[in-house]
Amino acid sequence: MPQSHKHHHHRGAVFLAGAGPGDPELLTLRALRLLKQADVIVYDHLVAPAILALARRGAQRIYAGKERGNHTMPQDEINALLVKLARAGHRVVRLKGGDPLIFGRGGEEAEALARSNVYFEIVPGITAASGVAAYAGIPLTHRDCAHACIFVAGHLKNGSVDLDWPALARPAQTIVVYMGLLGLPVLSRELIAHGLPAAMPAAIVQQGTSASQRVVTGTLESLPRLALTAGLHAPTLIIVGEVVRLREKLNWFVPPEDRGEGAALEAARLSSAATAAAVEPSAPPQISPLRRAM
Amino acid sequence: MPQSHKHHHHRGAVFLAGAGPGDPELLTLRALRLLKQADVIVYDHLVAPAILALARRGAQRIYAGKERGNHTMPQDEINALLVKLARAGHRVVRLKGGDPLIFGRGGEEAEALARSNVYFEIVPGITAASGVAAYAGIPLTHRDCAHACIFVAGHLKNGSVDLDWPALARPAQTIVVYMGLLGLPVLSRELIAHGLPAAMPAAIVQQGTSASQRVVTGTLESLPRLALTAGLHAPTLIIVGEVVRLREKLNWFVPPEDRGEGAALEAARLSSAATAAAVEPSAPPQISPLRRAM
Repeated sequence: MPQSHKHHHHRGAVFLAGAGPGDPELLTLRALRLLKQADVIVYDHLVAPAILALARRGAQRIYAGKERGNHTMPQDEINALLVKLARAGHRVVRLKGGDPLIFGRGGEEAEALARSNVYFEIVPGITAASGVAAYAGIPLTHRDCAHACIFVAGHLKNGSVDLDWPALARPAQTIVVYMGLLGLPVLSRELIAHGLPAAMPAAIVQQGTSASQRVVTGTLESLPRLALTAGLHAPTLIIVGEVVRLREKLNWFVPPEDRGEGAALEAARLSSAATAAAVEPSAPPQISPLRRAM
Repeated sequence: MPQSHKHHHHRGAVFLAGAGPGDPELLTLRALRLLKQADVIVYDHLVAPAILALARRGAQRIYAGKERGNHTMPQDEINALLVKLARAGHRVVRLKGGDPLIFGRGGEEAEALARSNVYFEIVPGITAASGVAAYAGIPLTHRDCAHACIFVAGHLKNGSVDLDWPALARPAQTIVVYMGLLGLPVLSRELIAHGLPAAMPAAIVQQGTSASQRVVTGTLESLPRLALTAGLHAPTLIIVGEVVRLREKLNWFVPPEDRGEGAALEAARLSSAATAAAVEPSAPPQISPLRRAM
């Protein structure tokens, strides 16, 4: 029986919403509207400050953490908090980086809400794979060389990464690894051991779609060393596949911080709440010459 | 060398933008802003009329087709058209259903633009897998049962579907098949033949996220028959995996057309341009009681 036919005892509601990969412009209209109506925002560390700044001025903000090795709040406490806030009658936006149902544990939170008979909705967001690849100029699928794309999480646990290597090491697919920086040496070794060419193009992107985006490209074999040399840090996204080659031609996005003079305004656009006003029809209707990366 | 450092001879620009899976509320802020500034919109048949209605009143609209068996305009003609429009100085939004780089052929269009030295940007959209799964109450990943998700296209060609079956028939992953309705019997047969349990939960969603959303759930074995009985038509999305079971608990979205009395207004919200006004901060700040599906 659909949830909507049950009787809800409480006026509160929880909206499990994706904030997208970083650039506030990649927020959905629905997520923005909900932020503007929220009583409480419960957010993860991957949510950009510029996005939080879009929330209703009076909204309470609760940080739920989830940095590696620093789980500010365990998952069951987050679940209990959401239920409690909704039962108190609040309109709660549970805001997560990317999409809530792709490596976001939104499913578990939704289960907890359903169990407690709390009204909820799920608001998809641009998942990191899609947003980061687009801003890095890397198509996830391509008629010539990528007929599938697979998303996995690359957490390092006890020095190893628990992935289905034979399923990953297949031709003509793009592999996207969330949270894979520390596991990258293992990933590289195992994918080659399971049959992918050492020369397969690969990229790692730090803070993709943001003003601080950094992209390092190489091969499956060279990428761990290159990432180390570049001194990358989380959050990162790894992309493995022939499609990475296309970045050379399709690399359109130059982060403001890489541009020098004149880029300050654009950096401000990406990292401030200026975005809020800009969705109004009355906003200046010109394409920003800075966005156009002169 | 990044494109931005090249010299662009023309003032025009092409924005390869994703329109998301259907619900206009899932448009990104960036895509909405670009639609409001566009001189020309070149759109595919999967773009909802309610989204097109958000474009600047004076913008020229060009339909580029791409229905199955009815390619109104071949891909190389679309590429040439985009180049021509940009060279004429137009700000062009190339609007595609879902995300432009996930089964959207946006990569090919970007290559054509880069080759012709036309300025372009890529604006990711909510891909159908993410949006449709969220509205169907199906998490694509889950700690207990889905550590990976893989996206493929299920086109039927000469009575068969060209997919890497051994890579798909793996445990603990969610398979999402775009455009797989006609190929569903082959998909079901091959996945079972390659080792997935016949009883594996599976769902097919027609027009996901829209007011006309229809969801049919069953098993890998029963789904082809159930889809036939239900008389589904394109566009559809197929989801295979243990996560489909969660829909029973997480099914929060009741399409207005399934609700009967009182749902008309909500249907109007989903299928009209009313959305345009609603992103303004001055919009009524209440959660729609209809959205809340009483």
